Amino acid sequence: MHTVRTFATMHCMTQQVNTSTLKGFKELLPQEQMAFNAMLETIRTTYESYGFIPLDTPVLERAEVIRAKAGGETEQQIYEFTKGTTDYAMRFDLTVPLARYVAEHERELAFPFRRYAIGKVYRGERPQAGRLREFYQCDIDIIGKGEISLSADAELPHIINDIFSQLITVPFTIRVNNRKTLNSFFSSLGVETDTALRALDKLDKIGPEGVRTELTEQGISADAIDKILAFATIKGTNAEILNTLEDMGVECAELRYVAEHAPVQIDLSIARGLAYYTGTVYETTLDDYLEIGSVCSGGRYDNLAGMYTNTALPGVGVSIGLSRLFDQLTARELIPLGASTPTRVLVVGEAGELPSALRQSGTPTEQAATDDISKALKYANKLGIPYVVIVGDEERAAGKYTLKDMQTGEQETLEKDAILAQCQTKTTT
Amino acid sequence: MHTVRTFATMHCMTQQVNTSTLKGFKELLPQEQMAFNAMLETIRTTYESYGFIPLDTPVLERAEVIRAKAGGETEQQIYEFTKGTTDYAMRFDLTVPLARYVAEHERELAFPFRRYAIGKVYRGERPQAGRLREFYQCDIDIIGKGEISLSADAELPHIINDIFSQLITVPFTIRVNNRKTLNSFFSSLGVETDTALRALDKLDKIGPEGVRTELTEQGISADAIDKILAFATIKGTNAEILNTLEDMGVECAELRYVAEHAPVQIDLSIARGLAYYTGTVYETTLDDYLEIGSVCSGGRYDNLAGMYTNTALPGVGVSIGLSRLFDQLTARELIPLGASTPTRVLVVGEAGELPSALRQSGTPTEQAATDDISKALKYANKLGIPYVVIVGDEERAAGKYTLKDMQTGEQETLEKDAILAQCQTKTTT
Repeated sequence: MHTVRTFATMHCMTQQVNTSTLKGFKELLPQEQMAFNAMLETIRTTYESYGFIPLDTPVLERAEVIRAKAGGETEQQIYEFTKGTTDYAMRFDLTVPLARYVAEHERELAFPFRRYAIGKVYRGERPQAGRLREFYQCDIDIIGKGEISLSADAELPHIINDIFSQLITVPFTIRVNNRKTLNSFFSSLGVETDTALRALDKLDKIGPEGVRTELTEQGISADAIDKILAFATIKGTNAEILNTLEDMGVECAELRYVAEHAPVQIDLSIARGLAYYTGTVYETTLDDYLEIGSVCSGGRYDNLAGMYTNTALPGVGVSIGLSRLFDQLTARELIPLGASTPTRVLVVGEAGELPSALRQSGTPTEQAATDDISKALKYANKLGIPYVVIVGDEERAAGKYTLKDMQTGEQETLEKDAILAQCQTKTTT
Repeated sequence: MHTVRTFATMHCMTQQVNTSTLKGFKELLPQEQMAFNAMLETIRTTYESYGFIPLDTPVLERAEVIRAKAGGETEQQIYEFTKGTTDYAMRFDLTVPLARYVAEHERELAFPFRRYAIGKVYRGERPQAGRLREFYQCDIDIIGKGEISLSADAELPHIINDIFSQLITVPFTIRVNNRKTLNSFFSSLGVETDTALRALDKLDKIGPEGVRTELTEQGISADAIDKILAFATIKGTNAEILNTLEDMGVECAELRYVAEHAPVQIDLSIARGLAYYTGTVYETTLDDYLEIGSVCSGGRYDNLAGMYTNTALPGVGVSIGLSRLFDQLTARELIPLGASTPTRVLVVGEAGELPSALRQSGTPTEQAATDDISKALKYANKLGIPYVVIVGDEERAAGKYTLKDMQTGEQETLEKDAILAQCQTKTTT
């Protein structure tokens, strides 16, 4: 369709402009938008049910604030510009604004500061295979002043579990690892954690022999390599893995605490993001769709805002990349698409106080733009509106209303109170 | 505080960056953010209760899309930049993206297309006296294909009325006027509507004699000027104004329809935005705070998307500038600031299933980060958490919980079910 419109734009309507969205930018049709918003709402209410405070920071920041935290690949992806004498940058995540906010308002906040943020972030990536340049992140973080209890690390998986149990019907696993456990193991071998992880990260691709070659080139002994490969393939229940680690003399107290207090599976192969995180790390995968990758990741960091303040602000947090998750789930039909409107009842004809009574009872109600019943039914059908109330001359004379159930096609003529009761029951079931 | 931090940044912590927000950009502290979000939620649920469909378009658009609609002052305020080969612009309102969206997805939408949009828009204004460069707009529009019934013009004031009745406790007035009525009157005098309105717009400032001088300079006869000044000062009830207009032979059928079907007050002096609108126009003012200006404005337009499609798309819509409204209301203490967190119950100590049972019953519940009761009470106090549940050794032994009401200071020791019932009652009242 985009091609057709572009063609039309160029050849027939030269005064008109290209109305497709930019590459990497997405907008949804009503039915998808309704489903997306329902997911957002589940995330938001669950975050709030655990007492996280909403935070909404500007999309534009001082370029120096954004640059101070962006490294390597991310730096090239920043949308930056100058207007007047100001250098602006668009946020590329919600963590940098959080760090700046906490540094700025440190004295006005209560700690631990539990905040959630749901908002769009911007990355000028090459828009290949599903990569978005504008997408939603849904973050929670618990920030301490000076210190933060390990119970925070154990709390987050409960929240993730609550959310995904509502969002999807397929099984998922919250995986945890701990940077201190890895450091303890690798340092006992005299190997740098990062060197080992870089090689282990390729285990799936190049196999154990490939990893062996790479580690040998780094000057690591055959004996140490055997142990590294054995470590990376430790499997079992949490208790089995923890026992194995203890037998090996590897530090795993934090990992044990989290595993014993949260719905998680220990996975010693999680390496992503470990350069940034300093303790617990999380990844969440859908058991039958591992190719999607992690749908909710995060971890603990010792110092959130070292670039912006001298106060030590340790924290732990996770982020759901909702736009990408939504795309992946809808592509696999794992999200039910329902109505294209919030309207539950479409009213055709003059219905007096009924529409506002329905609204007050929590039932979104729309007055049809037409009195033509067949046109109104067609409209209700197209949008997936479940009920239509018809008030014709006959009904008006009798002080009644005809309620049509659009799914079954059944209709009954009822009095106002019965309509209210009926629609309220039907909308809440 | 910003000055202090900047000083510190420059002299003591040279590696650190300025953490204040950019000029014209605002962020809220938790207590304000909670109040702001409650207002957003009222607007959102009311829009949905009338069956408006959520729409969320990108913040960044093709620069040509934004430029096609921006004129004069607005054009200079656009945040524009180039990255790679793409010219980007940030949206300056939610109407341009709506027009582009409807043009792009015309064949996939059901008409009338009733949509709401709540989102941030960007204007690089001089950030003088309270002008924001990033602010929320909350829009609803009803777009027809080819035509749209006048009942839509009458529906919008009901929605505005519902919203403001919930948002504020002070009286407000939804004022309406109609471009066709003005055209009818001015053309009967042989005067251009825009010429007359430009002069009348200064009535408050320069007085009737000033307006007379200005209109005389435009070559308008003394007799016509008398009539224009009389017209501009027509006051009374809607019925009185309409009767006067009819006696004068001025076209006012649309104005009469809206006045008779909606909670509005006719105000013939509304001129703002009339260059864009083609029929009904709305402004909403707070009766005791007229200096704030209109807090919700809009109107009817014949053709939403002429730049983007050849299909005629008439519509009618209104917009609430929520960020500015919030600033104005909080400055006058017209918005009650309450808690700094969604948490209703803070749990101190190990409480088993109680926290998740509370959450499931709709009561946001937070596990305290500390077992120290006095520290936890201090935290609850600082955040405005209304209830604290304490589980000490005594309570645990008895299978009970101590519930403390933070406002009255009263506390009772209760069983789990009683706590649940108590907190549920207390949170819903």
